[in-house]
Amino acid sequence: MSTSVTRVPAREGRGLQLAAGTSFRVVDPEGGQVGDLFAFCADDVTEYASAEHTRVHNDRLFPRVGQPFVTNRRRPILVFEADDSPGVHDMLCAACDPSRYAGLGVEGWHASCQENLQTVMAGFGHTPIEVPQPINLFMNIPVGEDWAIGWEPALTKPGDSVTMRTVLDCYVVLSACPQDIIVINNRQPGPLELEVLAG
Amino acid sequence: MSTSVTRVPAREGRGLQLAAGTSFRVVDPEGGQVGDLFAFCADDVTEYASAEHTRVHNDRLFPRVGQPFVTNRRRPILVFEADDSPGVHDMLCAACDPSRYAGLGVEGWHASCQENLQTVMAGFGHTPIEVPQPINLFMNIPVGEDWAIGWEPALTKPGDSVTMRTVLDCYVVLSACPQDIIVINNRQPGPLELEVLAG
Repeated sequence: MSTSVTRVPAREGRGLQLAAGTSFRVVDPEGGQVGDLFAFCADDVTEYASAEHTRVHNDRLFPRVGQPFVTNRRRPILVFEADDSPGVHDMLCAACDPSRYAGLGVEGWHASCQENLQTVMAGFGHTPIEVPQPINLFMNIPVGEDWAIGWEPALTKPGDSVTMRTVLDCYVVLSACPQDIIVINNRQPGPLELEVLAG
Repeated sequence: MSTSVTRVPAREGRGLQLAAGTSFRVVDPEGGQVGDLFAFCADDVTEYASAEHTRVHNDRLFPRVGQPFVTNRRRPILVFEADDSPGVHDMLCAACDPSRYAGLGVEGWHASCQENLQTVMAGFGHTPIEVPQPINLFMNIPVGEDWAIGWEPALTKPGDSVTMRTVLDCYVVLSACPQDIIVINNRQPGPLELEVLAG
């Protein structure tokens, strides 16, 4: 049962301030779409969900269901409650940003997960802000035996989701990744939904 | 030919401000020792060598010899010039810090790579500073097929080294990792050397 659904339009970002103990779902309504998820402590945004601390905490490249995402001070901030998707996610790749698109040959402005994050956090009154390594939900980045990483299309079907629970009072920001130059969003960036569940 | 050698005592950190185009070696004189390496732009320390941007730039978990380490603005800051070691390095794990040692059961103060970095950068007049994911030289972190990461002893022999070249004017900080609870430094943290090579 949901108490609210926030639509994240294609190529844009949205955020919510959530109390500790709140469960939320990230839904891919059309399928094949990556969501860059960020979490910052509400009382001190220099503490945020950190990929490198989360890998050490769980001894894994990405948490399993039941495991936490921890902050750069090693405190659990989110728990991975359920995965109703193919289970393919990434925590190795930086958020796309203007320099990424320039490097891919884009001339002029292109929407990016970094700018989406900055816009949402500015709306909460926090600017400038450190841009952490995101939790790249549904992003399909295979790691080869020779440590090469690949870039493959997201495998989600319409309606696939993951469920998280907050452990600390935090800002949660979700960007519907606007990457349309490489194939990770099947070259058709779509929307996402951020659904807060009844407690 | 070296122009200067900076000894990094066991469990401590040291740093240098280096002009663009300077080559330096990180030497493990006794073997079996991890070095946490950081690089910050001299003119703006909010730009620093970033693991997540470097992985994307090279499509690899760790650069090969010849490839760059790039900043959080995707500019090359270091180039990996030579590897005279077993070639096993890590860029997945956060720097050790007080919360890491507390989690491992240590009571009271324990030296850490995070504190070493903060001490060195404070000496350059930069405090507080963001603590980036380090370049963990000689650190032996195997990645399993199931995305589990392991913690194994460093494989370096006495005198093994890597050589880097700066691409931007930068601060380079090296911490001789004081981790003695788990086996990455063979439970005997030793010194390192930071050797600037003649141009």
